[in-house]
Amino acid sequence: MALENPGKQDIKELELSSEEMRALIDLAMDRIVEHIASLPVQPVSDVSGGEQLARLMAEGMPEQATPFADLLDLLFHRLVPKSYNTASPGYLAYIPGGGLFHAAVADLIADSVNRYVTVWAAAPALAQLEANVLRWFADMIGYPREAQGVLTTGGSMASFTALVTARRERLPKDFLSGTLYASDQVHHSVIKAALLAGFPEENVRAIPVDGHFRIRPGALRTRIADDRRLGLSPFFIVASAGTTNTGAVDDLEKLADVAREERLWLHVDAAYGGFFMLTERGQKAMRGMERADSVTLDPHKALFLPYGTGSLLVRDGAALRRAHTVNADYMPPMQADPDLVDFCLLSPELSRDFRGLRVWLPFKLHGAGAFRRSLDEKLDLAQWVTGELRQIPGMEIVAAPQLSLVAFRLVRAGLDPDQLNDLNRRLLEKVNARQRVFLTATTLGGRFVLRICVLSFRTHLDRMRMAVSDIRDAVQEL
Amino acid sequence: MALENPGKQDIKELELSSEEMRALIDLAMDRIVEHIASLPVQPVSDVSGGEQLARLMAEGMPEQATPFADLLDLLFHRLVPKSYNTASPGYLAYIPGGGLFHAAVADLIADSVNRYVTVWAAAPALAQLEANVLRWFADMIGYPREAQGVLTTGGSMASFTALVTARRERLPKDFLSGTLYASDQVHHSVIKAALLAGFPEENVRAIPVDGHFRIRPGALRTRIADDRRLGLSPFFIVASAGTTNTGAVDDLEKLADVAREERLWLHVDAAYGGFFMLTERGQKAMRGMERADSVTLDPHKALFLPYGTGSLLVRDGAALRRAHTVNADYMPPMQADPDLVDFCLLSPELSRDFRGLRVWLPFKLHGAGAFRRSLDEKLDLAQWVTGELRQIPGMEIVAAPQLSLVAFRLVRAGLDPDQLNDLNRRLLEKVNARQRVFLTATTLGGRFVLRICVLSFRTHLDRMRMAVSDIRDAVQEL
Repeated sequence: MALENPGKQDIKELELSSEEMRALIDLAMDRIVEHIASLPVQPVSDVSGGEQLARLMAEGMPEQATPFADLLDLLFHRLVPKSYNTASPGYLAYIPGGGLFHAAVADLIADSVNRYVTVWAAAPALAQLEANVLRWFADMIGYPREAQGVLTTGGSMASFTALVTARRERLPKDFLSGTLYASDQVHHSVIKAALLAGFPEENVRAIPVDGHFRIRPGALRTRIADDRRLGLSPFFIVASAGTTNTGAVDDLEKLADVAREERLWLHVDAAYGGFFMLTERGQKAMRGMERADSVTLDPHKALFLPYGTGSLLVRDGAALRRAHTVNADYMPPMQADPDLVDFCLLSPELSRDFRGLRVWLPFKLHGAGAFRRSLDEKLDLAQWVTGELRQIPGMEIVAAPQLSLVAFRLVRAGLDPDQLNDLNRRLLEKVNARQRVFLTATTLGGRFVLRICVLSFRTHLDRMRMAVSDIRDAVQEL
Repeated sequence: MALENPGKQDIKELELSSEEMRALIDLAMDRIVEHIASLPVQPVSDVSGGEQLARLMAEGMPEQATPFADLLDLLFHRLVPKSYNTASPGYLAYIPGGGLFHAAVADLIADSVNRYVTVWAAAPALAQLEANVLRWFADMIGYPREAQGVLTTGGSMASFTALVTARRERLPKDFLSGTLYASDQVHHSVIKAALLAGFPEENVRAIPVDGHFRIRPGALRTRIADDRRLGLSPFFIVASAGTTNTGAVDDLEKLADVAREERLWLHVDAAYGGFFMLTERGQKAMRGMERADSVTLDPHKALFLPYGTGSLLVRDGAALRRAHTVNADYMPPMQADPDLVDFCLLSPELSRDFRGLRVWLPFKLHGAGAFRRSLDEKLDLAQWVTGELRQIPGMEIVAAPQLSLVAFRLVRAGLDPDQLNDLNRRLLEKVNARQRVFLTATTLGGRFVLRICVLSFRTHLDRMRMAVSDIRDAVQEL
C-alpha cells in the first residue's frame, strides 16, 4: 500500500542543525563552567525544603515545549542545589566520587556517535578500546592474561555478576543450599546480590571481625566446617578491600589460603579501595588480590569518574563467559578468539552505553601518573586528618585509615552508651551545619561513629583543615 | 601523625580550569557537529579491516599524556568509522535507535554535576525528575497510580528485574521447579534473565506461534496444564510487543486472560514496540498492555535515545520494592511515602548514572508531540516500504508490519530451501554492499529472511526510496 502523498510525512523536529547543537552546548556550558568553578564556595549539602520542591516538581508528560534556558535555570538554580553536593571538595561522606569533567566530554562524544560496543562485530575498534581499559585494570591488580572483565554501572552489578559466575561454576544444579561468607562489615550489595541470584538471605554468613574490622579467618574456617557438617554447600567468600563503614581491608592473602584449601570462590569487593592498587601503599594494603577469583572495582569511586562506572574482573575469563552466553538467530556472529571481546557474552547486559570511553579518555589525556599522585594525596590527607583528630581532647580514633577513611567518635567520661551516641549525633549535625564539609556516620557494635572518607580529586589540604577546624569548634560548643 | 610539609601534597592535575573545560568541549563539538551533519553521506556500515585495527589498538595503561586533538583524530577518523553506523538514517538493521543529541547534552550536564539520584534524600528534586519520567511512561501505557518503575541500562536488565520481582512474589521459597512461558520468537534476553535468576534453561518453554508470529494462546494453556500435571510450578508468561525477528505483537488481551485464569505473572517485553503507545495505531496494536504485571520499554529504541536507556514498569509498585529492598547502617534514611522514590529500593543498582535527565530533557524541549509524530512517520514508512516490496517480482512478505518492521525474502521457482536461503543471503550482501542502507536477517523455520526495521528519527522517505531502489537493483543482478 503506497501512501498517496508520502512526502508530507517527513518529521524532522528532533533533528538539530549544527547551529542548534552548538547553541545547546554553549548554553549548557555557561552553567556547567559556573557550577564547577563555584564548587569550593557552594554548600556541601543543602536539602532544606527538598521535599516540598520534589512534590511541586511532579507533572505529567509535557505536550508544551519549554525553552532550554528555562530548563537550565530550573536545573542549576533550583533542582541541583538541593542535594548532597557530591561534586564538592568538602564531600567526605559515604564513599565520595567527585566526577571528572573529562568523563562528561567522553559521554558527550559517546552519546553523539551512539555506536554499539557490546557486540564486537558492530564496532571492533571501540570494543577494543573498552577491552584495553579492562586490561589495564587486570594488569594493575596482577591478573593473568586469561582474565576478562566488564564495565558495569557500579559495584552492585559487578558483585552480582561475580556471584552468578561463581554459582554457575561451583553449583551448576540445585544451588539453594549454597552458602556465602563475608565479614559482618560487608557492603549490603553483597546480600542483595545473593537475593537477586536466588539465594535465601539466611545463606549469607556474617563472619565476625577483629579489632581492625577485618574478617577473622579462623572464625571463617569454623563456620565453613559447621556448614559442611549441616549438609550445606559453602562456595563463595567475599573479602572487602575497603569497607564502607571503616575502610577496613581484609587480609586477602589469608582469605586466599582459606579459599584454596576449602575450594571456595574468593571474590574481593574492592569497589572503594581497588584503584589504590595504582599506589605502592595500596598494593601493600591489598596484597594477595591477584589470588582472588574475581574483583569488583568502581571507577566512579577511586578513579573519580561520574556515577555509573563500575567494573568486574574475573581471573578465569572463560568462566565469566560461560555464565553469560546465550545466542540468538537475529544476532551478529560472536567471536571465538578471546582477544576479540563481545561484552554481551560477559555480562547480563546487551544494549548499553559505551562506558569504556569515559575511563579511557582521562587516562589518555593525563597518563596514569595523575591518578596515582592524586590517590597518594588522598592517603596522605587521611593520615594527616587522623593525626589532627587525635589531638582533639576526647576524640577516639575508632578505625585508623587502612586506605583513606578514618572513623572516630567523641568520648566523654560519665556518659552511658546512649548519651555518647547522642553526643556524637549532635557533633555530626554541628559539623555538617557549617556546610563546608559533609560527613556521615555509621553504627559499629551499637556505637554511633563519624567517618571521613577522603576520595575526591578536588579535596586538598585546605579542605581538610576546614574539616578539622569545624570539628574542633563543634566539639567546643558541645 | 602530621606531615612535615603537607602543603606540597596538593595534586590538582585532574582539575580543569574553565578555559580548559571550554577548550575540550569546543574541540569535541567541532568533530561531533561534522560527524552528525555528514551522517547522511557516511557509509551505513563499514567494518573492513576492523579486526586488524582492533588488534593494533591493544595497549597497556598509558603513562604518557596524549593531546586531545590527537585522541579526537583517532576516534573520529579511525575508530568510530569502522562500525555499524547505528546513528545513520540508513540503519534499518536489528532494532535501530539513532541517538538524540539532546541526550548527549543531558549527559554532559548530569556527569558534570554528578549528583546521586538513587537515594531520594541525596537529591530529592532530581530523583523526582526521574520519577516524573517513569510516571509519564506508566500513564502512557495506562498503569494505575500505584505502579512504579526504574530506568535501566536496557531491555535485558529490565526483564531480569521483572523476573526477580515475579519470582519473589510467586515463588518465594524453592523456585527451581518454576516454569516460564514465551513464544518461540521471544528475545533471548528473556532466556538469559531466567539463567541469571537461577532457573534451569529447560524451564523456559518456547510456545509455538501462529502465521503472524504471535504466541498461540491455546498452545500456551495446554503447556501450562501439562507442566502442572508434572508437578512443576508455572508462574511467568512473557508476551512480546514487537519481536526482534519480525516485529510481531502478541495478543496481549488474550494473554492477560490466560495469566488471570492461571494466576501467572504476565510480563510484556515491549522493549522495541512500547513507545508506539504514544500513537493511536500503537495503542490499537498493543491493546491490553495495562493488564500486564510488568512491562519492559526501551527509550533507546523507540524514543531514539542513545544506548544505555531502558526501563521497567511494574503495576504493583510495592512488589518491585519488596524484591529489591536491603538496608544498611551506613545508608541515608529511605522514604516510606511511595511518592518519594528511592530508586535503589526498586532496582538491583545502587550507585549509577542519572538517567532520568536524558529522557526528561528532550521531552521538555520538544513536548511529547514531536515523538508521537516521528513514530507515526515510522509506521507510515514501514507500510510504504512493504507496499513497494510487494511490487518487486518474486518478493514474498514473510511478515507485514504490525508496527514498523517488515520481514521479506525473494522466492524463485525451482530452487530448494538451501538454494533459496543462499539467494537471500546474496541479496542481503548486495544491498548492504551499497552502504546506503544496512539491513539484517534472521532465520524463521529454517528460512533465511531479510528485515527492515524503521525506527531512527533520522530515517525519512528519501532513505526508504534508496532502500527500495537498492533492493530492486540487487534483485535484478541476482
